[in-house]
Amino acid sequence: MNKYDSVIHFTRGAPADSMLATDLIIQGSSAALQQFHAAALRYGSAYGFPPLREWIATREGVPIEEVIVGNGSINVLAFLVEYLLKPGDVVFVEEPSYDRALSLFRRAGARVRAIPLEEDGISLSHLRQALRETPPRLFYLITEFNNPAGTRTSLVKREALAAEAREHDFLLVDDRAYQALRYSGPALPRLHDLAPEHSIMLGSFSKLLAPGLRTGWAILPARLAQLVAAYIEDALISPNYFAEATIAAIVSTPAYDDTIANLCQAYGQLRDQAEALITVHLEPLGVRWIRPDGGFFIGLWLPETARPAWHLGPTYGLDLLNGDAFFLDRKNTNFVRLPFCSVSSAELHEGIARLAALLRDFAGE
Amino acid sequence: MNKYDSVIHFTRGAPADSMLATDLIIQGSSAALQQFHAAALRYGSAYGFPPLREWIATREGVPIEEVIVGNGSINVLAFLVEYLLKPGDVVFVEEPSYDRALSLFRRAGARVRAIPLEEDGISLSHLRQALRETPPRLFYLITEFNNPAGTRTSLVKREALAAEAREHDFLLVDDRAYQALRYSGPALPRLHDLAPEHSIMLGSFSKLLAPGLRTGWAILPARLAQLVAAYIEDALISPNYFAEATIAAIVSTPAYDDTIANLCQAYGQLRDQAEALITVHLEPLGVRWIRPDGGFFIGLWLPETARPAWHLGPTYGLDLLNGDAFFLDRKNTNFVRLPFCSVSSAELHEGIARLAALLRDFAGE
Repeated sequence: MNKYDSVIHFTRGAPADSMLATDLIIQGSSAALQQFHAAALRYGSAYGFPPLREWIATREGVPIEEVIVGNGSINVLAFLVEYLLKPGDVVFVEEPSYDRALSLFRRAGARVRAIPLEEDGISLSHLRQALRETPPRLFYLITEFNNPAGTRTSLVKREALAAEAREHDFLLVDDRAYQALRYSGPALPRLHDLAPEHSIMLGSFSKLLAPGLRTGWAILPARLAQLVAAYIEDALISPNYFAEATIAAIVSTPAYDDTIANLCQAYGQLRDQAEALITVHLEPLGVRWIRPDGGFFIGLWLPETARPAWHLGPTYGLDLLNGDAFFLDRKNTNFVRLPFCSVSSAELHEGIARLAALLRDFAGE
Repeated sequence: MNKYDSVIHFTRGAPADSMLATDLIIQGSSAALQQFHAAALRYGSAYGFPPLREWIATREGVPIEEVIVGNGSINVLAFLVEYLLKPGDVVFVEEPSYDRALSLFRRAGARVRAIPLEEDGISLSHLRQALRETPPRLFYLITEFNNPAGTRTSLVKREALAAEAREHDFLLVDDRAYQALRYSGPALPRLHDLAPEHSIMLGSFSKLLAPGLRTGWAILPARLAQLVAAYIEDALISPNYFAEATIAAIVSTPAYDDTIANLCQAYGQLRDQAEALITVHLEPLGVRWIRPDGGFFIGLWLPETARPAWHLGPTYGLDLLNGDAFFLDRKNTNFVRLPFCSVSSAELHEGIARLAALLRDFAGE
């Protein structure tokens, strides 16, 4: 079937092997045990390893009492969802949004409502319409570089979201796993800066050091953090102190910020290449997309057709995700997520060329 | 208040710092990254890191499809509980039993029924009475060295449990976190050997290498393993591959089995000392206990009195757990869990002397 002698993977949102911080992690794990001794290997608090909590608190400008570090940000989100949501509770999400988060909300029995994304964040008119009907318990957003669409929420929309959260008393859950990976555009105030009492922030080391460290965090009001930490303790006693101590040893060296700077440079170049290739090869075929200022992804809305293009991927030597997964109920979205950070420059060139070939043949069907 | 100038901690069931495998872990983490490269640092399967699953499967004599390795055995149990139990489902537990497991069953809304422990495992007459009333969905047991009582389930009772599980079609969840720490007595067939289709086994590296590695496992029928792994994937993508790869590197060297042999020798000596001290100092004061063949704990049933002795601990320089936590509903159990493996020989001597002093004064009140 495959016309090519290789497969290019445009599926998972994970760093390429060459971008994993392997050397830092080898040094960090042995430094951690020399620096923290048995404290890195014991059971501990369900809030996470204190030195890493402290570093995150300083970096994020929040009190340490608001920081929970856990076994990956998705696992911390899973606990938050279990703790906060009852069946029937209303949750708003951007559309498209992170498929694994959608799964967690569905599993909790929440009534999930999608607010469509525009170039600069969610549609405020749709938000206000939805708020008139039923304000949510929480609104899950990825303001810094949406997964899968690549959009960033503008300052105007951040201010509007903060105002609505205060007025209707719901929580803004801002998944900031990609916040450190900004390649263009200015720093913007976080939803947390605009409505701290109505904010939960999620963060992660998965895209910065390695996913296998399974370490992410939540920043949430101290009173809620206390309740959620007690809930987490029941289910895992404490998170992985060995991994967290390793990270604590790494972030305390200048090599950490150098690593992030290098990632931003490398990923920024891939982003620029992807943009140039999309403009030349895909736009003329009717593909819509939004230029991302950071993160891992560019969302491609392929032309609407009777059947989705992604399932033709294998014939063209392409491994594509079923883009419907990022949408709530809509079928036949014909959406493709392009993870420009997970591939090499050569794979990006070849993959986009194959996608263009696929679309040309597809349109002729 | 404290008549002594120190506090002896008879609380947590964790290894003393001196027993943590710190050097092995330093070597193991760097060996893991050299041996497994990026495979140790990526996202992976929710079943856990394949080389470690394979080692566990071989060691336990089961197919690899039955092995799930996760972020500590309690976290794997938490997922099993969430997946298997609906509110109102019946769960049997030994009494006393592990307090954190009791919390998980309660949180799931299960109707938990306690089957009392005798010297050689649960009371079969109580079990059969309870089965006549309502057979459970699952029976949670710690057959190899109950936490907190130290008892071991005899072969006769294992065979009876296996027969009842088959007849009434319930799952035997055998928490074997202490299985490698046997100081006397013969190896016995596991519940899994007697009723494999009705068995789930839990295991852990927390007591063997270090709790901070947060790595434990479940062995369960392959069909159920598949469903539970999918459930786990939703909540954490994959467990901590970095820790699991570190352990995989450690267990592949002869140093691992040497370490376990050393632990058994050291803990066996502490067990012998504890027994001698209890016989001399506590038995004459009316304390009942059961001689353990392994594990971390000796359960002490203090004389029944109007109020529990454990809350007097601080006055006597003793940090004691509220033993009621290991019982379902009974108050004023006056039960104390002695974690003889978590303390030094000197602390054991001094702590038991203080406990005897407490009990003598207490009886005179």
